[in-house]
Amino acid sequence: MDIIVIDCGVQFPTEEMLGIDFVIPNISYLEDNLDRIRGILITHGHEDHIGALPFVLPSLQTPVYSPLFAHALIRAKLLEHPECNNAELYPITPGIPYDFGSNFQVTWFQVTHSIPDAMGLIIETPIGTVIHTGDFKLDHTPVDGKTMDLSRLASYGSNGVLLLCSDSTYAEVEGFTLSENLMQDAFDKSFGEASGRILIATFASLISRIQQIVDVSNRYNRKICFIGRSMVDNVSMARRMGYLKIPSDVIVTLNESKALSSEQVVYVTTGSQGEPRSALSRIANRDHRDIAIQENDTVILSASPIPGNELLVNRNIDNLLRQGAKVLYDKNSFVHVHGHGSREELKIILNLIKPDYFIPVHGEYRHLMAHAGIAWHLGVADKGIYVLEDGDVLEISESEAGVTGSVSADPVYIDGSLMLAAGSPVLDDRQSLSNYGVITIVITIDESQRKIIDNPKVLSSGFMGINETKSVFSALGTQVRESFSISVDVWDDLEIMKSKLKEIVRVYLFSKTRRQPIIIPIIKKI
Amino acid sequence: MDIIVIDCGVQFPTEEMLGIDFVIPNISYLEDNLDRIRGILITHGHEDHIGALPFVLPSLQTPVYSPLFAHALIRAKLLEHPECNNAELYPITPGIPYDFGSNFQVTWFQVTHSIPDAMGLIIETPIGTVIHTGDFKLDHTPVDGKTMDLSRLASYGSNGVLLLCSDSTYAEVEGFTLSENLMQDAFDKSFGEASGRILIATFASLISRIQQIVDVSNRYNRKICFIGRSMVDNVSMARRMGYLKIPSDVIVTLNESKALSSEQVVYVTTGSQGEPRSALSRIANRDHRDIAIQENDTVILSASPIPGNELLVNRNIDNLLRQGAKVLYDKNSFVHVHGHGSREELKIILNLIKPDYFIPVHGEYRHLMAHAGIAWHLGVADKGIYVLEDGDVLEISESEAGVTGSVSADPVYIDGSLMLAAGSPVLDDRQSLSNYGVITIVITIDESQRKIIDNPKVLSSGFMGINETKSVFSALGTQVRESFSISVDVWDDLEIMKSKLKEIVRVYLFSKTRRQPIIIPIIKKI
Repeated sequence: MDIIVIDCGVQFPTEEMLGIDFVIPNISYLEDNLDRIRGILITHGHEDHIGALPFVLPSLQTPVYSPLFAHALIRAKLLEHPECNNAELYPITPGIPYDFGSNFQVTWFQVTHSIPDAMGLIIETPIGTVIHTGDFKLDHTPVDGKTMDLSRLASYGSNGVLLLCSDSTYAEVEGFTLSENLMQDAFDKSFGEASGRILIATFASLISRIQQIVDVSNRYNRKICFIGRSMVDNVSMARRMGYLKIPSDVIVTLNESKALSSEQVVYVTTGSQGEPRSALSRIANRDHRDIAIQENDTVILSASPIPGNELLVNRNIDNLLRQGAKVLYDKNSFVHVHGHGSREELKIILNLIKPDYFIPVHGEYRHLMAHAGIAWHLGVADKGIYVLEDGDVLEISESEAGVTGSVSADPVYIDGSLMLAAGSPVLDDRQSLSNYGVITIVITIDESQRKIIDNPKVLSSGFMGINETKSVFSALGTQVRESFSISVDVWDDLEIMKSKLKEIVRVYLFSKTRRQPIIIPIIKKI
Repeated sequence: MDIIVIDCGVQFPTEEMLGIDFVIPNISYLEDNLDRIRGILITHGHEDHIGALPFVLPSLQTPVYSPLFAHALIRAKLLEHPECNNAELYPITPGIPYDFGSNFQVTWFQVTHSIPDAMGLIIETPIGTVIHTGDFKLDHTPVDGKTMDLSRLASYGSNGVLLLCSDSTYAEVEGFTLSENLMQDAFDKSFGEASGRILIATFASLISRIQQIVDVSNRYNRKICFIGRSMVDNVSMARRMGYLKIPSDVIVTLNESKALSSEQVVYVTTGSQGEPRSALSRIANRDHRDIAIQENDTVILSASPIPGNELLVNRNIDNLLRQGAKVLYDKNSFVHVHGHGSREELKIILNLIKPDYFIPVHGEYRHLMAHAGIAWHLGVADKGIYVLEDGDVLEISESEAGVTGSVSADPVYIDGSLMLAAGSPVLDDRQSLSNYGVITIVITIDESQRKIIDNPKVLSSGFMGINETKSVFSALGTQVRESFSISVDVWDDLEIMKSKLKEIVRVYLFSKTRRQPIIIPIIKKI
């Protein structure tokens, strides 16, 4: 049986995943079935759809098929991973069927979303058609004019679709998501009211937003300076590929921008999510090499915070206000439209396609459940609605369907150049270290005399301030000298002695400080 | 000159304040002026208004005056802090003027908020009246019937008010905040639709919400079981004091609840903010000793997440759904009304009081700015609107006002039983430890021979998995033996040798692993 893999994204670590860069799923099932994999099929170029490629391609060694813009992003990404330099990457053309093995014929189709070339997949199989929407909204007036291919979907719908997999991200949100096009009027208003420089932070891959900023800047005779590495890289790539149209006299360098009067400048920057090292956060923290906020600057956060980023975004807003900027953000202005379809859009897709089976995809569990609830109320997918967990195996035959088991898809943490399994004791240790710090205690013992022969040496990091540690550690040393010989009865087993020492230290420190630092006991024998 | 202190709250630590329990301001200015302090005046009993008392009372030794419910909460809180057992705590009666020194006469007045006995302050001074709203909303139909004393405010307003300090928390939110009373209908609806047990999570101090849950439970012939220590404690205190009216046959114990059929039970619990050790989070994680979710349970999160808590709350929702509960939360149902006034309410207060000067208080900088913007648009406070930072000193005389300086109010971190200054290197160390862990390296040197005489011993915690460390540490040991003698030229200065050793380890580990653990070097001499 052939295997196709749809998308290959990363998850971003949550607060408690200390030191972790990314989270990807365990792919051992795929590694065990390498010979059956016909390719990785990418819907669009966001990180949660392509970000895991550098980590899985070395072991999967399978070709990657992507819409053109995603293809370019993947190529750029893999350049930084020499272990992937023999990856087979193919751009696809929408509307053309591609064969993957003898079972799958796949046609990419245009959807509207917050990145160029977002696509869904029509997958013809021997037992029927599967439609996977990818991430989408129903934007009837997208900035690049490429509307969603609804007629194609409708014709498949009327011929009968076996299974629909549809984007659930906004299944909790009532109504319709607004068109990207509306941002034009919003920018017009804020540009009209701005008396000084304008700084706009948005997503570097949201090319249609950047196009609108370019257009309105042009109308207001402002020049644009792009700031932040991913913004500069993406803009340059999108221009080269024709996705972004900027007259060359509209772009200025940072130095040129400084020579312009403040009503002539727009800075477009990264940092709309409050990322600590982004250009906007540096500017907000008065820590940017080249740009400092001036009175009368208008800062537009053309984004809304992704859950988990609220505090970082809020901190930037506060710090920009403190420096005298006017700040437009989602709570006080119309600055952003979302990229995912709301409940009414999800209903349209469900009703247009009327699948036999439905799997809500892309979203957290509550989003999947909300989307399943919509399908249930519409009465579509009467053969079955499946809310699946990562790794679940749903088998569909001509006559029936059912979850028949699950394969391992446990989270794997990318930690620098290594991978850590979720639940690794390394992470528990980091948790303790982050709360209480670490104590190292070194004692030297004389086995024959069965005693400690010098003053225990205690060192710490992240435990308490240096003034507090002095007296605590000196008393701890005394305590250890007094209790160690009494509590140890086996003097030739280092491991037992170490755990006794650790226990003495643990109990003493907890009683004196109510803290539980990591304790590293070291015993030297003479 | 007399000093009065209004409220004495804690801030909760943000993500990067590792291991910190609370944040309070530096109070050295008050400590330097102990003889002038006439008292701490509390507006209401929320933690951000009373939580710092245990940490500042030992050094301030000043009486605390509070509305009755706050008074009871403070007494209960201080019982756990023996260092405060001689605190002078006085309950106040609203509407009666209290003298504080020769300059201040203060009258507490009733406001509506999300805790019983929330009050504002009318402060008569020799040069005019100061009104401080405390936290408030304008609820015309509060559950306890105690409406805000608007007529008193109006009469002060028409006599002239020097300065207004007004709650800014919701200064970004358009319109009016809904009445607490509306929750009655909302609960009626969800109780009517529930076919099994009902679990409701809300704030333990939101007594009027609990009263409504009691009332609707009574109507639906359900018994209530309270869960979670702070919920149980607050309910029992509020009943004793008459703030909460519960017929005694409506309350059941956990054991009694288990004997009831599922349509007869309501559990009211803490954990509406996703607090990891709360009852609701334990239930969501299948980790509660007594309660496990059943199919047909309805869980109502009668709260909305405080910024920063979104991910924890979302995780609970997902885990409850996974176990088959129906979950009602702010995104899919009407489950909560807020406790702070929105923009239209703030306008009413500003227009009713028409102060000469205005200080927006209680909120982050963007909220203060938004509130200042409202006052500006209304054209009130024409003598001056002051958006102040912590520590700023605003001086107002009969003829003029101005910020004349600032006193230290830097954040102080409460870390177990100790206090840490913000920016302490202890916190930087915890940050490094949390990302990369710690390495301890022990070498023994022979000074006379100028060399390392045994194999370096390397131990780690939170660095890498045990399998990866083995080869890295053995190679590190070799590296240290080879380079140490070469790089060290002074063999009698232990500090210099330690920093050389640290540097060798740092460079080697970074080149091999791209990580920067905390390194604790230990050198033994023989």
